[in-house]
Amino acid sequence: MRTQAAIIGGGPAGLLLSQLLMKAGVSTVVLERRSRDHVLSRIRAGVLEWGSVEALRRAGVGGRMDAEGEVHHGVALGHTNHQFRIDFTERCDRAVMVYGQTEITKDLYAAQDAMGATIIDEAEDVALHDLDGTAPRVTWRKDGVAHELTADIVAGCDGFHGIARQSIPAGKRTEFERVFPFGWLGILSETPPVSHELIYSNHERGFALASMRNPHLSRYYVQVPADERVENWSDEAFWDELRRRLPHDAADGLVTGPSIEKSIALLRAFVCEPMRWGRLLLAGDAAHIVPPTGAKGLNLAIGDVALLAEVLTAHFAGDAAALDTYSDRALERVWSAIRFSVSMTNLLHRFPDQTAFEQRLQEAELAHIERSASAQTTFARNYTGLLT
Amino acid sequence: MRTQAAIIGGGPAGLLLSQLLMKAGVSTVVLERRSRDHVLSRIRAGVLEWGSVEALRRAGVGGRMDAEGEVHHGVALGHTNHQFRIDFTERCDRAVMVYGQTEITKDLYAAQDAMGATIIDEAEDVALHDLDGTAPRVTWRKDGVAHELTADIVAGCDGFHGIARQSIPAGKRTEFERVFPFGWLGILSETPPVSHELIYSNHERGFALASMRNPHLSRYYVQVPADERVENWSDEAFWDELRRRLPHDAADGLVTGPSIEKSIALLRAFVCEPMRWGRLLLAGDAAHIVPPTGAKGLNLAIGDVALLAEVLTAHFAGDAAALDTYSDRALERVWSAIRFSVSMTNLLHRFPDQTAFEQRLQEAELAHIERSASAQTTFARNYTGLLT
Repeated sequence: MRTQAAIIGGGPAGLLLSQLLMKAGVSTVVLERRSRDHVLSRIRAGVLEWGSVEALRRAGVGGRMDAEGEVHHGVALGHTNHQFRIDFTERCDRAVMVYGQTEITKDLYAAQDAMGATIIDEAEDVALHDLDGTAPRVTWRKDGVAHELTADIVAGCDGFHGIARQSIPAGKRTEFERVFPFGWLGILSETPPVSHELIYSNHERGFALASMRNPHLSRYYVQVPADERVENWSDEAFWDELRRRLPHDAADGLVTGPSIEKSIALLRAFVCEPMRWGRLLLAGDAAHIVPPTGAKGLNLAIGDVALLAEVLTAHFAGDAAALDTYSDRALERVWSAIRFSVSMTNLLHRFPDQTAFEQRLQEAELAHIERSASAQTTFARNYTGLLT
Repeated sequence: MRTQAAIIGGGPAGLLLSQLLMKAGVSTVVLERRSRDHVLSRIRAGVLEWGSVEALRRAGVGGRMDAEGEVHHGVALGHTNHQFRIDFTERCDRAVMVYGQTEITKDLYAAQDAMGATIIDEAEDVALHDLDGTAPRVTWRKDGVAHELTADIVAGCDGFHGIARQSIPAGKRTEFERVFPFGWLGILSETPPVSHELIYSNHERGFALASMRNPHLSRYYVQVPADERVENWSDEAFWDELRRRLPHDAADGLVTGPSIEKSIALLRAFVCEPMRWGRLLLAGDAAHIVPPTGAKGLNLAIGDVALLAEVLTAHFAGDAAALDTYSDRALERVWSAIRFSVSMTNLLHRFPDQTAFEQRLQEAELAHIERSASAQTTFARNYTGLLT
């Protein structure tokens, strides 16, 4: 079996890359370790930067997003039981789109199926070979049968725990990491969101986030210790805690109901440099993880993939230097998003060893953002995905 | 002995307060523990926000500053041996004035002497009494003789180690503090400054700052460990280290010479809340310390004093509520400056436990400021002393 681009991972990054490459006339094979049902059952991010919206449209998968997604023109920051709004339109003439990652993945599967894409799911024991040559190979087993694929390039879109990054020899990559001493306990509930826009709330009991997937489906989070267990949280305990941490005027309107999903995610920042080794190019969580504050994870993956599709299209059109440009260009956006996400995380969470001095610094920073037009512009540009 | 305002501390804060109050017809007595020569020998800050410039002019002590001070319209930030400039005029239509604290103190002494101010130096064993009543008293000894002064209010302008703040019962004040694990080794040298504007440099060996007092007098600093001893640093070793840490194009033009002052200052952030107890009102370092990155210390003191003079003038004009407004109004500016100074300190210094991840974050933040107009506007507004 032979293809131009072997794509490891059939989540949104791998599927979008395959979609963009096929549209540019590049042949692809997508290998996914899990079943399609499993991929579609994962609850993930829901806020798209406008650059991501445009990339999905270019890929031909923007139809349902544009019909069903909700455009948000601002966001609220809460502190000391008070909230203020940052107006994206006023500050930088941009917006974001609320549309769940699960829906994007569904749309991508549908589009890929319509184009006759080769997507192999439940591929076990995937391994990469000869990445430093010009004819890398991928091997895997499915239903007990061994398979091999020869490609021109391999795209690693298989997430943080995937095999792609680990196929780069340890001496050929540098990893940067910060693990935060807390997690987010999140629930999904079929209730109307407490606000029509997101509320990020700094509270003495810990961070809380009021988010949503659509007008009938709410997504809420509260900060919990890193070693907290989801079993310790009844729905009632969650709602009580959320209500305490949201600004009072918002909490008053909170509609509660049974959770349909409840889980804890730890907060981590991680970057692997470079994002290319030989004929292997990494995209999305395979190369980097941002803490979820600011919703950059999926957007970074889409950004990587849009750039990678451009670079690979140039490569297959004969531009011998194209591959060399990928890593530095991708990492510039990655570090910018990491920086913003980490600063938002630091601003909004309670740290276990946080002193009274540091709490005052958080309050002073929030007060500064509330009062400063230029600080709001910087926040709005970063949040909506503008690089400068 | 009786006065309206007993002012503890004859540094720039106390002298400026006395000057402003006397101009408003309020009687003052200034008590200073050290000799005038000692006060004038202290090497301190040299960068004035425009609000400070205007406060000094209002006090009638702006003449020599306006003639000899240098107006700076920008500042350079250096990193990875590269520098970029933030243009204050372009970003916020403000400037700063470089004019040494020692010169300001000289000008204030001259102005106070001309007005016939009562400035008692070498006052020993200064103690404050009855601060929670309406007739506070100050006692001290001079030349072996005990003295007592009754006042309407007492202004604590006697610095971080002074007795004023400590005269507030421990249960009536809350102190917030962060001590940084490094200091600044500074020298003063009669050489032309390496640049006509300040250069703040982030370097893998540690922070460096190229500053000046005038076109013939340079002030340079390099970050050193908190336990470093000044005796370990020859002039030659200092110049070598400074040259390594400045951006290359700047370092090439460095003119060296013998130091005329060399010392190490530790970096600390400190705030005492509230800044008033009964009839005692604190101003400047007596109430708060900022790390020197960003040069806010003297400016905060001048800001406190300008506000305090306004509040006391209203108080003595019969406004019974005036004193109550001082602390909250002063603390708003104080926390804003602390926030900015701490963030600049965090951005530019190497911390002992700094990880490779955190170094990348510093580089990403500097790159962001370099590229982002709104981030430069925020920096310029904060640096030049605009509150929002």
